[in-house]
Amino acid sequence: MKRTIYLKKKRLAEAKEIVSSKMSNLIHLETETIPVVQALGRVIAEPVFAKISSPSYHCAAMDGIAVKAETTYGATEESPKSLLINKEAFFINTGNPVPQGMDAVIMIEDVHTLDSERVEIREAAYPWQHVRAIGEDVIATEMVFSENHKITPYDLGALLASGYKEVKVWKKPRVLIVPTGSELLEAEEMDLSELVLASGIIESNSYILSGLIVEDGGEPFRHPIVEDDPQKIKGALLSNYEKVDLILMIAGSSAGSEDFTRSIIEESGEVFVHGISMMPGKPTLIGRFKDRPTIGIPGYPVSAIIAYEELVRPLLYQSLHLMKPERPTIKALPTRKIPSKLGTEEFLRVKLGKVGEKYFATPLPRGSGMITSLTKADGIIRIPPPSEGLNENEATEVELLKPIDEITNTVVMVGSHDLTLDILANLLGKYYPPMSLSSHPVGSLGGILAIRNGICHMAGTHLLDPETGEYNLPYIRTHLNGIHVKVIHLVQREQGLMVQRGNPKKIKGLEDLLRKEITFINRQKGSGTRILLDHTLKNFFLDSNRIRGYEKEEFTHMAVASTIASGVADAGLGILPAAKVMNLDFIPIAKERYDLVIPSIYFEDEKMKKVIEIIRSEEFKKMVFQMGGYDVSRTGEELSECGMRNFPSPR
Amino acid sequence: MKRTIYLKKKRLAEAKEIVSSKMSNLIHLETETIPVVQALGRVIAEPVFAKISSPSYHCAAMDGIAVKAETTYGATEESPKSLLINKEAFFINTGNPVPQGMDAVIMIEDVHTLDSERVEIREAAYPWQHVRAIGEDVIATEMVFSENHKITPYDLGALLASGYKEVKVWKKPRVLIVPTGSELLEAEEMDLSELVLASGIIESNSYILSGLIVEDGGEPFRHPIVEDDPQKIKGALLSNYEKVDLILMIAGSSAGSEDFTRSIIEESGEVFVHGISMMPGKPTLIGRFKDRPTIGIPGYPVSAIIAYEELVRPLLYQSLHLMKPERPTIKALPTRKIPSKLGTEEFLRVKLGKVGEKYFATPLPRGSGMITSLTKADGIIRIPPPSEGLNENEATEVELLKPIDEITNTVVMVGSHDLTLDILANLLGKYYPPMSLSSHPVGSLGGILAIRNGICHMAGTHLLDPETGEYNLPYIRTHLNGIHVKVIHLVQREQGLMVQRGNPKKIKGLEDLLRKEITFINRQKGSGTRILLDHTLKNFFLDSNRIRGYEKEEFTHMAVASTIASGVADAGLGILPAAKVMNLDFIPIAKERYDLVIPSIYFEDEKMKKVIEIIRSEEFKKMVFQMGGYDVSRTGEELSECGMRNFPSPR
Repeated sequence: MKRTIYLKKKRLAEAKEIVSSKMSNLIHLETETIPVVQALGRVIAEPVFAKISSPSYHCAAMDGIAVKAETTYGATEESPKSLLINKEAFFINTGNPVPQGMDAVIMIEDVHTLDSERVEIREAAYPWQHVRAIGEDVIATEMVFSENHKITPYDLGALLASGYKEVKVWKKPRVLIVPTGSELLEAEEMDLSELVLASGIIESNSYILSGLIVEDGGEPFRHPIVEDDPQKIKGALLSNYEKVDLILMIAGSSAGSEDFTRSIIEESGEVFVHGISMMPGKPTLIGRFKDRPTIGIPGYPVSAIIAYEELVRPLLYQSLHLMKPERPTIKALPTRKIPSKLGTEEFLRVKLGKVGEKYFATPLPRGSGMITSLTKADGIIRIPPPSEGLNENEATEVELLKPIDEITNTVVMVGSHDLTLDILANLLGKYYPPMSLSSHPVGSLGGILAIRNGICHMAGTHLLDPETGEYNLPYIRTHLNGIHVKVIHLVQREQGLMVQRGNPKKIKGLEDLLRKEITFINRQKGSGTRILLDHTLKNFFLDSNRIRGYEKEEFTHMAVASTIASGVADAGLGILPAAKVMNLDFIPIAKERYDLVIPSIYFEDEKMKKVIEIIRSEEFKKMVFQMGGYDVSRTGEELSECGMRNFPSPR
Repeated sequence: MKRTIYLKKKRLAEAKEIVSSKMSNLIHLETETIPVVQALGRVIAEPVFAKISSPSYHCAAMDGIAVKAETTYGATEESPKSLLINKEAFFINTGNPVPQGMDAVIMIEDVHTLDSERVEIREAAYPWQHVRAIGEDVIATEMVFSENHKITPYDLGALLASGYKEVKVWKKPRVLIVPTGSELLEAEEMDLSELVLASGIIESNSYILSGLIVEDGGEPFRHPIVEDDPQKIKGALLSNYEKVDLILMIAGSSAGSEDFTRSIIEESGEVFVHGISMMPGKPTLIGRFKDRPTIGIPGYPVSAIIAYEELVRPLLYQSLHLMKPERPTIKALPTRKIPSKLGTEEFLRVKLGKVGEKYFATPLPRGSGMITSLTKADGIIRIPPPSEGLNENEATEVELLKPIDEITNTVVMVGSHDLTLDILANLLGKYYPPMSLSSHPVGSLGGILAIRNGICHMAGTHLLDPETGEYNLPYIRTHLNGIHVKVIHLVQREQGLMVQRGNPKKIKGLEDLLRKEITFINRQKGSGTRILLDHTLKNFFLDSNRIRGYEKEEFTHMAVASTIASGVADAGLGILPAAKVMNLDFIPIAKERYDLVIPSIYFEDEKMKKVIEIIRSEEFKKMVFQMGGYDVSRTGEELSECGMRNFPSPR
């Protein structure tokens, strides 16, 4: 079995240097002359000198009468002067040419019509008053734009005013995108039947890259999927390379048995770099196919995007003679310690939130296959090669992917996840568009600790105190001693065992989990569901050591439900709505209270008021009720300690 | 003569409130379902819940062999384990499904092939090692995007991965643009012959607005120019209003005799606002034609843009359920006192420069007809209605129109203008793309004072000291006492009288300026040319009071040349290249030295090194020489005081 290895691995900085020096020399954009009115966003290829002046004649800057200033001298309030219409005074509107011999305009408000032949004025005009002189805006021959200027909407006006009907611009760099991989399915043939789904992956990288190329001023040409066959891949390149300025080959640049990019490029060109010390994005290749710069883009979507943004984007801007725009940055505190591999440049996707006066960055999952780690991200932290990671309490630079306003308008919620939070987030975005809710599932206890550490605006929690049978408040008293908080009741919900549809293994209750043929899937320590499980097992004298799968943990109800639905596990504890949406059977175990903990200092905040307003709205309650599995009868109530006892204890 | 007046004038804040409440209610975008691969930049119209999980099956996260973890237990470096191919171990590439019964992947690097039937491993695998579980990225049913989310390139990947081939989005708001005005010429019929030029203005506002609408996510429909005829304007509206969501009528909303917008809207709808206390942009109208929101946009380009950005842009974003992006801002110091009208919100366009650690804002011309005041601007200062203007030394907020990097990469040059600076600016942009040169023509003395006040990186100056006949250095000694500067010689150039082609008034020298039939055009006080003029007049005992037009001042050589070319004046003092480009005759008066003054603290700066490098390049000297009228024999030399005496004194 032939496999390649990374022979030409480089650090990212070196790889970028090679792209900037060797690769950019291979791109020589031609120019084209296009109508100005179609030139928005294009790059001017030669300096633009005005062909005409603007205005091209002396014209009125106001509506009024055109006069010769001398004629008006001496006119005052006490001794007005009368002027003969069409001899000494000419009615004129803004923009009209000033008649020959006239050199000033008097505003219409100051003109008194005496009769059909005469007007009266009560103030003298000075020469060139309210006249726009030839060339006031643009003087013929002056340089209006230097070359390599990107055309904005405003510029269309200046180009037309300077006498340009057409403009010479750089052609857009043409980029061939070749997605490779026998496991790929064409998006347009998407078929959601299980048989097809289990056999392949919908190809999406080429569309992500096409979108990025369009935004960066290039012109993408997507080739249909090519299977993992070196002859077919080579054929795709041979029949297209001459039509483009740059080639991106997606996947096949790793070191697998079906990774042919390297051998193809070596055979018909040259490999400059193979493998880059970055994460995601290691299996990137830089070379040329014939004389065309070619980049082998990794197959995982996040890797593909990072490789594009770090290597292809600068090349496109360089070829267009433009400066690559830099993302704005802010300083933020990581919400936890984040180790990173020494010697590798890591691109960590983070959610950001402004809590109090500080920005906090919570890392998103690091897998390079997880496109949602980018769609959910507010920013990216670059962890440089010499670093072993980030420390809490050490502010670090974050490149922003979203406007800072969106981030400051985000309510940061940490703790246990509940499906109703999606509804809350959606209604917030619908009624108060700048606002959003970011939700970090770290379990109930994690949420309460996040409040203590001041890194969130609110925490979601459903923690049963085994001693008292009371929910949440005992934990708040213990862990948030001295921190003033309000507790808002969100929902009551049913916890139970989720099992496969039809309950094929005939599970009736927790005691069945001890059966040898049952595989369980657990929630993480500190989650309310885990505490409920452990408490109930203990009450029934059931030994958790005897449960197969007790040590395998997931972080959300939906992840547990998904694991069961896929057949990897037979049962897991979770909430009824999660079982419903995943079409699982459900065996009730307990009814529990899910509350929101909000530091009092944020309670009067405008953002928080809107959150509470939505929670208390009939629309929210109705939508939650319709999901099923929720009791919303007391949703939105502020809990006093005595009031809480009215809630039922778990069975 | 019927004229309307502003009956419903409002402050900008009130006008915006009316747009947000009354106007936005009139727009109800429909939804449409479009292919995901064409949905870049569109706005999602309903929450997107994943139809499938991603990955939709357990798959290999690495190239290697799929195994059942249990089978591998006990394998170590000392006691390797062998596994049967296609029974206990299955070769697998990244992304392939993990075969039934297997639950882990061992990386290919750790697999040793023994023979065609067996592989050997030296380390045990743990369950789910290197396996991407179903739903790792997206779990079926989870909310992937809330409604009113704008689709980025990344999002295309998440939508496809979630099983969406099509997506429901808001239709783009359709905007009808009706340019009105009998003086307007269609850009596509542009004809630069003088006859045509003198009769009209090339219509460009509709293209500027179209560009802005496209950038803001709308769909512009440009109507051909409609002349100032109320029936024709109304006809254009009647036959198109039902096809669009919003109408923009350009010009005709002022109070002139041919401004019909108001009466048309009153007749067929309602006027909410007529006239807004802002500058530029006062003659703006807000109303509805039938039930279609309609905005009367002023005819001057800067007014049109401000009216669009303040009123139309928010409306488009609101209709798309999006938050309007805010421009980033910085604090900058005005380079001079700027008075502004009390009660009016002024939008002052400024050039920005970073000199030392501070940002400085220099106002650009304030005329609303000057589109170049926006194309050249780096930012906009809003002067609020209660303010009477800006003070020097009082930092004020500037909305940025360009990335901050471009501004920090700008070399700020203040002082006398010379045409060779255009060449310098163009070469800087060509060879060092992030860099640019901003040049503020305030005259030679103004430049030297700008150096003293620390508001520029360099000053251009050509100041004759009448006492010594020496250029520049005496002024530097007097005004920059204690400030270390370097003086770099740029060019020698010829000053003389510019007169109309063929010299119809037979002007031979300065003494002719005293003739009654000659109209002169002067330069501003403090400019090198003015000092040269006054010095030479004095030498020849000529009385400036007897020169007609001596009191009318322009700020650049080109403005003087243009005034003469247009016939408004007969003669003016200026440099030979200006006369050449405007095709004027030229009567030489003096040869003078134009130098650059650079504070020593900036001389070693990387930006300045590049400026000097270009000034000293053969390419620069050649281009300057080819313009004619310049002597470049000593261009780029650093001047010592003694070295300077070798330069010729003025005749």
